[in-house]
Amino acid sequence: MKDINIPLKKISVIGGNRIEEGSDIYNMALLVGKNIAKNGAVLICGGLSGVMEAACKGAREEGGLTIGILPSTDEDTANKWVDIKIPTGLGYARNSLVVLCSHAVIAINGAEGTLSEIGYALTFKKPLIGLDTWSVRPYRDIPRKLIKNAGSPEEAVVLALNSINIK
Amino acid sequence: MKDINIPLKKISVIGGNRIEEGSDIYNMALLVGKNIAKNGAVLICGGLSGVMEAACKGAREEGGLTIGILPSTDEDTANKWVDIKIPTGLGYARNSLVVLCSHAVIAINGAEGTLSEIGYALTFKKPLIGLDTWSVRPYRDIPRKLIKNAGSPEEAVVLALNSINIK
Amino acid sequence: MKDINIPLKKISVIGGNRIEEGSDIYNMALLVGKNIAKNGAVLICGGLSGVMEAACKGAREEGGLTIGILPSTDEDTANKWVDIKIPTGLGYARNSLVVLCSHAVIAINGAEGTLSEIGYALTFKKPLIGLDTWSVRPYRDIPRKLIKNAGSPEEAVVLALNSINIK
Amino acid sequence: MKDINIPLKKISVIGGNRIEEGSDIYNMALLVGKNIAKNGAVLICGGLSGVMEAACKGAREEGGLTIGILPSTDEDTANKWVDIKIPTGLGYARNSLVVLCSHAVIAINGAEGTLSEIGYALTFKKPLIGLDTWSVRPYRDIPRKLIKNAGSPEEAVVLALNSINIK
Repeated sequence: MKDINIPLKKISVIGGNRIEEGSDIYNMALLVGKNIAKNGAVLICGGLSGVMEAACKGAREEGGLTIGILPSTDEDTANKWVDIKIPTGLGYARNSLVVLCSHAVIAINGAEGTLSEIGYALTFKKPLIGLDTWSVRPYRDIPRKLIKNAGSPEEAVVLALNSINIK
Repeated sequence: MKDINIPLKKISVIGGNRIEEGSDIYNMALLVGKNIAKNGAVLICGGLSGVMEAACKGAREEGGLTIGILPSTDEDTANKWVDIKIPTGLGYARNSLVVLCSHAVIAINGAEGTLSEIGYALTFKKPLIGLDTWSVRPYRDIPRKLIKNAGSPEEAVVLALNSINIK
Repeated sequence: MKDINIPLKKISVIGGNRIEEGSDIYNMALLVGKNIAKNGAVLICGGLSGVMEAACKGAREEGGLTIGILPSTDEDTANKWVDIKIPTGLGYARNSLVVLCSHAVIAINGAEGTLSEIGYALTFKKPLIGLDTWSVRPYRDIPRKLIKNAGSPEEAVVLALNSINIK
Repeated sequence: MKDINIPLKKISVIGGNRIEEGSDIYNMALLVGKNIAKNGAVLICGGLSGVMEAACKGAREEGGLTIGILPSTDEDTANKWVDIKIPTGLGYARNSLVVLCSHAVIAINGAEGTLSEIGYALTFKKPLIGLDTWSVRPYRDIPRKLIKNAGSPEEAVVLALNSINIK
């Protein structure tokens, strides 16, 4: 057990689960997690490995609170830096929840599952910040900035925090 | 009541619900629906208006079977060309089901919700055919054909059917 | 493929998946399925073995249409008498859908999962008919008939059909 | 913001949302919440009014952490004593999650929704403690203690805590 503050702002970090420890993307996610915690926000994620694990690890190193919305019914599938484990048993349908229960979303790289979460972030009108992530463009639409790309982990967190407007 | 055949192949049609009757996209979806039915396949969709309605209408005009996976708990929210109404009460989380319960997916144009379904089609490894729909590209990836674009409604249905391999 | 009618009334049959072929409960479910089909209604169920399988088999023997709302992402988990397979990937959370997408519910015997479905039938105010199933009583409530018990499979289907009021 | 401990044991409190402040059942839930927090456990609930509100209020008065798994997509539907708001957008299908993400379940009184959660608690093999709640009995089964009834809020929490076996 540890003493923490329960902050009000919640930021989801989405990204692939096959990213290996020590890789550039892993380190990017680690820094995103650290900055979320340093700024007193709660980290939400899918609770598994890769980008999710790195972000949780970073947040915990700075004393932050981490929540993992898991696809399975088994809380032991969470990475070891998840404080609050939410096993859903919903499989990939839990992707909608990962996005829905935060105030802003940071997408780091990512595979197909991340693309579904990007779709949900836009559907639920959540501020969406990208770090080396998918490009998405509606058919023949006027080029719009659906994803706000950040130049660094620090900037991604600043953009996410500034987009949140809680009473 | 009407006499129909229950075919084995199921194709999901995904696309925006704000497309108006008579528009080019509406007519495209109508033809997709017609061709699905003519080829003896079942049409799956989200059951609402716009592209979903047009596809159901087309399929029914050719004597096909249509299934609508609805976001609400109320089956009366289905468009009037849905045969089998599946109210889920899951909201947008039902997007995963729209994709999951078919053998191939045809994306016609589409807004944010469609993007989440495109993400799910790729996640669940369903053959994915596009008609004037989103462009999606993983970060700095070798350009891959994640969505197989078709030149016409007829071609989209042929590509979808040919991608299905049922024992 | 076979010729069938698409009827408008949908009845869910809920019950345990560990009931063996040839047992009294299996035969009861078989007769419920037969009577649903004979009366032109669609059979909805969880798509698996035991009571679900028996009801589907019965319905198909009378030329009825059967729909299975499956917990897994794999449609091959359905019993072989399911016409329309709806793999959800939601695990037991799909129990709410099994109940929600019908107009009346027949509970046959059943284990813990069936109890959650009985709770949903009452929550969604679906007519609920019981055949040798759970007894449930709210705390110190005036005894109410939450589940309408039937004396035979035939009576269960008559009670279910009579409870449905579709425009 | 406040300083708290993040404990490891999670207990779900389930019960009706139409219970009024000041009633016996409300006060019972308040005491359950207080005892959960005093014993360093996390309170999980559906996040709404009635029993859920009372339990959250009690837990917060003792400095505990409360999590609300909400049916809607809007976190402002949570009662004001919920720390971590998890809007799911799943409607009543979220009942499975309320049960699944805890280690033990305390049912206080309750209406139909609570019955579905009792069914899930038994399905997921969660220890289930009752306080003036539903009676449930499988058909002609040997009388078993599916719900372990407690004589007081204090006893309910002790029974719940003792049933949890975390490595």
